[in-house]
Amino acid sequence: MVGGGRGSFIGPIHRMAAKMDDSAILVAGCFSRDKKENLKTAEETGLKSDRLYSSWQSLIEKEKGNIDFLTVCTPNDSHYEITKAALESGIHVLCEKPLSLTRKEAEKIEKLAAKKNLLVAVPFTYTGFPMVKLARELVSGGELGKICKANIEYVQGSFRKINFKKPLDKRNAWKMDPSKSGPSCVVADIGVHGACLIEYITGLEIKSVLSDISSFAPGNTLDDDASILMRLDEGAKAAMVTSKVATGEENGVRVRVYGDKASLFWNQELPNQLSVKYPNEPERIYKRNTPYIGAVSPMAAAASRIPSGHDEGFIEAFANIYRGFCAAVAGENKLDFPTAYEGVRTMRFVEAVLKSARSGSRWMQV
Amino acid sequence: MVGGGRGSFIGPIHRMAAKMDDSAILVAGCFSRDKKENLKTAEETGLKSDRLYSSWQSLIEKEKGNIDFLTVCTPNDSHYEITKAALESGIHVLCEKPLSLTRKEAEKIEKLAAKKNLLVAVPFTYTGFPMVKLARELVSGGELGKICKANIEYVQGSFRKINFKKPLDKRNAWKMDPSKSGPSCVVADIGVHGACLIEYITGLEIKSVLSDISSFAPGNTLDDDASILMRLDEGAKAAMVTSKVATGEENGVRVRVYGDKASLFWNQELPNQLSVKYPNEPERIYKRNTPYIGAVSPMAAAASRIPSGHDEGFIEAFANIYRGFCAAVAGENKLDFPTAYEGVRTMRFVEAVLKSARSGSRWMQV
Amino acid sequence: MVGGGRGSFIGPIHRMAAKMDDSAILVAGCFSRDKKENLKTAEETGLKSDRLYSSWQSLIEKEKGNIDFLTVCTPNDSHYEITKAALESGIHVLCEKPLSLTRKEAEKIEKLAAKKNLLVAVPFTYTGFPMVKLARELVSGGELGKICKANIEYVQGSFRKINFKKPLDKRNAWKMDPSKSGPSCVVADIGVHGACLIEYITGLEIKSVLSDISSFAPGNTLDDDASILMRLDEGAKAAMVTSKVATGEENGVRVRVYGDKASLFWNQELPNQLSVKYPNEPERIYKRNTPYIGAVSPMAAAASRIPSGHDEGFIEAFANIYRGFCAAVAGENKLDFPTAYEGVRTMRFVEAVLKSARSGSRWMQV
Amino acid sequence: MVGGGRGSFIGPIHRMAAKMDDSAILVAGCFSRDKKENLKTAEETGLKSDRLYSSWQSLIEKEKGNIDFLTVCTPNDSHYEITKAALESGIHVLCEKPLSLTRKEAEKIEKLAAKKNLLVAVPFTYTGFPMVKLARELVSGGELGKICKANIEYVQGSFRKINFKKPLDKRNAWKMDPSKSGPSCVVADIGVHGACLIEYITGLEIKSVLSDISSFAPGNTLDDDASILMRLDEGAKAAMVTSKVATGEENGVRVRVYGDKASLFWNQELPNQLSVKYPNEPERIYKRNTPYIGAVSPMAAAASRIPSGHDEGFIEAFANIYRGFCAAVAGENKLDFPTAYEGVRTMRFVEAVLKSARSGSRWMQV
Repeated sequence: MVGGGRGSFIGPIHRMAAKMDDSAILVAGCFSRDKKENLKTAEETGLKSDRLYSSWQSLIEKEKGNIDFLTVCTPNDSHYEITKAALESGIHVLCEKPLSLTRKEAEKIEKLAAKKNLLVAVPFTYTGFPMVKLARELVSGGELGKICKANIEYVQGSFRKINFKKPLDKRNAWKMDPSKSGPSCVVADIGVHGACLIEYITGLEIKSVLSDISSFAPGNTLDDDASILMRLDEGAKAAMVTSKVATGEENGVRVRVYGDKASLFWNQELPNQLSVKYPNEPERIYKRNTPYIGAVSPMAAAASRIPSGHDEGFIEAFANIYRGFCAAVAGENKLDFPTAYEGVRTMRFVEAVLKSARSGSRWMQV
Repeated sequence: MVGGGRGSFIGPIHRMAAKMDDSAILVAGCFSRDKKENLKTAEETGLKSDRLYSSWQSLIEKEKGNIDFLTVCTPNDSHYEITKAALESGIHVLCEKPLSLTRKEAEKIEKLAAKKNLLVAVPFTYTGFPMVKLARELVSGGELGKICKANIEYVQGSFRKINFKKPLDKRNAWKMDPSKSGPSCVVADIGVHGACLIEYITGLEIKSVLSDISSFAPGNTLDDDASILMRLDEGAKAAMVTSKVATGEENGVRVRVYGDKASLFWNQELPNQLSVKYPNEPERIYKRNTPYIGAVSPMAAAASRIPSGHDEGFIEAFANIYRGFCAAVAGENKLDFPTAYEGVRTMRFVEAVLKSARSGSRWMQV
Repeated sequence: MVGGGRGSFIGPIHRMAAKMDDSAILVAGCFSRDKKENLKTAEETGLKSDRLYSSWQSLIEKEKGNIDFLTVCTPNDSHYEITKAALESGIHVLCEKPLSLTRKEAEKIEKLAAKKNLLVAVPFTYTGFPMVKLARELVSGGELGKICKANIEYVQGSFRKINFKKPLDKRNAWKMDPSKSGPSCVVADIGVHGACLIEYITGLEIKSVLSDISSFAPGNTLDDDASILMRLDEGAKAAMVTSKVATGEENGVRVRVYGDKASLFWNQELPNQLSVKYPNEPERIYKRNTPYIGAVSPMAAAASRIPSGHDEGFIEAFANIYRGFCAAVAGENKLDFPTAYEGVRTMRFVEAVLKSARSGSRWMQV
Repeated sequence: MVGGGRGSFIGPIHRMAAKMDDSAILVAGCFSRDKKENLKTAEETGLKSDRLYSSWQSLIEKEKGNIDFLTVCTPNDSHYEITKAALESGIHVLCEKPLSLTRKEAEKIEKLAAKKNLLVAVPFTYTGFPMVKLARELVSGGELGKICKANIEYVQGSFRKINFKKPLDKRNAWKMDPSKSGPSCVVADIGVHGACLIEYITGLEIKSVLSDISSFAPGNTLDDDASILMRLDEGAKAAMVTSKVATGEENGVRVRVYGDKASLFWNQELPNQLSVKYPNEPERIYKRNTPYIGAVSPMAAAASRIPSGHDEGFIEAFANIYRGFCAAVAGENKLDFPTAYEGVRTMRFVEAVLKSARSGSRWMQV
């Protein structure tokens, strides 16, 4: 693992997710450029000091051949460089989104991995939820009929808890620095999850986008709110609101997909259920890991650990990505997980959204 | 009352709403051009035959001076003519939306009413719900702080129950005929309620709109789905999805308003509660007619009839509009109700939305 | 109408319910012993003074033969006397619960009505909700299989807003005086609705009860909280918690019924939906007045006025009782409504519950 | 670890919970009497064969001094024997409930542990949920005032998926054999969680119980449904319905606690939120790991891993028990976890409930 020191949000989640199903064991790491932090994280995670490295370069050099894959959860600006180096050293990579700061670099990663016949996973976590997998399989199985519209919210109120006029704490500082995190904030950080969910669930590609983008939080100069219209394959359309200034929202990912036979609704904050509505029948509430789920969605059934009625959450969804990726690393390709393909698709999405906003909300191709 | 025969959706609701609080008594009517239907509706409503008319013209002529106001719930294409004639005869009018088929005519009605010092009510029903009034007063009282964004859905699946390739039944036929209902379907029929709610709750005017409009139902030629972006006063923005092809949705009016201190959420299908979320405090669920409501929202308190915990619904909200309007007709102006102003605002909204859609989703002024 | 002056909770609801569908017109009344109040209520309701009476005795004497039926909503201690007198004068009666202060008197009313071939309605309002009718018809249609258990809550926090150590206001004073309201408070006032719902929905009789009763509100001497176990026909069982000290609860009527094929859940505060759960299928959420409802429950379909998605509430449920009763008064018996039978059943229930509590929670026959 | 082979429900949960926070590492085991199963579980869990044992006796003998504690998740009839042996060998124990088949043996365990100064944890999982800890601290902090009533459901429909007339599968067979699982089924298996939650949240002891117990599932001879009334310390009361024949229910643990100032509601299937209702203020919805939670409930704050809005579930709650217990094993006693005390309390509860049922629903002391 490179990055993901103790203070970070995502580092510990990677480690809990990897351990949950014994998908992977942490054997080598370089968690922080800060020597002390690096050491402390090693101690906390039980990593032996002889496999703790002070730079990712030395980690790759020394560990190539010894590790099954590399997890990259550094700040965004080093994703490309590290992932590229790892692939070139013949190492599979699980890299936090975004794959790179630019679309072009992401495309290079995708090509490089293909050429080297190596795996790249990008943890778009929400695709790891059993009920999202059910959603996808309900659509692909024809239960909703022909899809015409999706309506997505991904809204947080996090920026209402931050004073942008003062220096930011370490956890937020790099995220608000375009040179480290990339040219977009809300769209690239959370909007991409929405875009990924639309394509994952509907199986349709986003062809073009139109956007209106704002910076509402006082003192913030990056985008923190966006309304985005989309045109998909086969004449379908979509709308998304994504925001970091949606005061009081925690992590409001709400997805509605409408077909000509039925529609579905999933709310990430109540992740163990999926609603399906029909014109002439009662609404159905599907629950995770119920007796009937396997017949409809083998992927959803495979993505559950414990009986229905016992809540599984975000870490479990993340663990599903690890499980799928690690199975693939081990040579089996039985479980789905998001790859460089999704990494590239979402980069293209961000680029087109920003371009549209800058053009005064014109339609832009993805 | 003109229009609103027994088969119609809205006619009986007008009558139930008017009776609920003894706001008004039906004393004269012309319910249908079909003689039999006209007679039958009179019988059902207990209207005496000497005040049943075969044309709205004769009703106005004979009843002017005898009735306190006229309710107009005919198909859209006669709203303007009847309302105009009634106003010219010195009669207050409660006219179903839209006030007319064109924005210009609606503006004429507004001016005429002002000139004649007569009242015109247009029943944008959702403003009649106590919790919507609470929402408005929470915003105007500063509870949400400065508003930056609204996100609205008004979605129905009704068109999934209709076969547009066969002749439509009477109830739907005129609604799908632009010469009778006007140039827009979903935007003018339900989208306007969303626009009205945004302005009513936030107190901000919609300045410009951008839209993407579709006709998804096979055989339907009018708009049945729209995604609309909006720019409001004071830099605020809004997004709306409105649809008649949202399969399985009944009458999904869901309103989210975000300020810099708090946000609110109201779901018309669970109308007796309003959620308010804060960055650093637990979410609060306000309920209708509770002991604490009067202090926050006198308008919400005045709009309730029965104790909290006992559901009040759509007819009650409609009755609130009658109550407010009839009190104003009687000379008191203590309760709020939507007027020709809202009638005109929403016509401008529809016009701008259609213009934007035709222009390839450009921003258009309202 | 006798009783139900302007200040009362239930009087105005009776009047709104009667008007909603033109089920009945108020033509004569004696609303209050207080002359001023009586007059004011007459004015507010538009009752002409020549049919306003200063005593219920004179109303019955003068109006017998002129009125179709009499509504009784006086304090409980006069229900028996008035209802009896009305029946003896050949007048149908719609009497607020309880029919009397004692079970024996209630039984006399039931017999008298039968003998005279007159109708007695007792408004157990919750049986008037469309989704409760659906519940009954789902059970009787076999959808749930054999019923084994019901679990009911009817909980309010109303007593947490009252200071019982001070003199009570007029609205509450008689309710807390056993000589006027009868020997039980929470069980007789709201617990009976729970008992009635169990029998109405399951179609099974409550055979015996066991109870534990408390007076928790400081200064209150009547029962304000009860836990009640029940044994029903055919080996089924039930449990109920009913309370007036359930702090913060508004009108929490929550009903769960379990059969061997499926179970159902209805929450009065969200009355337009009914949940049905199965062992091996997704939960189904039935909504009021949907296209599919008529096939399952003609009674539910007949009890709706407006399209699904537009909330109908408590007044509408009450109006359904008026509609059913008035249709029966007019000679048609097409709609169901609660009668003296339910009035007597619930009196027996209260008597047995109190007896069990006094015996130290022994089983008592109903 | 003793017991918990791969096919079992609870074994894998123990292992996932222990790993999540690196609370413990599996170093020795005896998972099954079936040699093959034992070996396979060892392989799956990565346990080295030299520390895999064919009997718990040899495990304890060889590992005493080498392991920090022993997890016992065998069928119920061996809990007592194994736990006793471990304690006598100076080993801390985390033992699945019940501690033993009889109350007396459980009391012996409690005493033995005290005498030996060893720790015994019994994973009453629901006390591990952050929002349950919040509930406890809201009550102990006085937010609800004096508690008067609790109303609990713990209902499952699991027995509706089993045919008791055929031989049961391995997972269920021992649970339905009183010689292996003890004299009670639903009360001992899930009802005890309800009893534990009442005492944990309210801080009050259950003093006496009254019960009505049934066997509804065809062919089942043990209790599968119970209604239980309770009297607590300080005059408080409680009611519980617990069932395995509640068709369609997954794992319905719903807890309502009423005080004289406020009430609370927690639903295990939506575990990340807690509702608190007041007489004269809006309902508050507390969410897990929000900025305001630490001030109200340090225990809830300490029991969360990831930001609010990202669902944490059952495994995480279980991991909280491991974390608390392992910290205590390591000498720190900073986190709460359920112990032999709760093990004994719940055994007394079961004994009294069964006694009451056999006596025809008399009150029995706990």
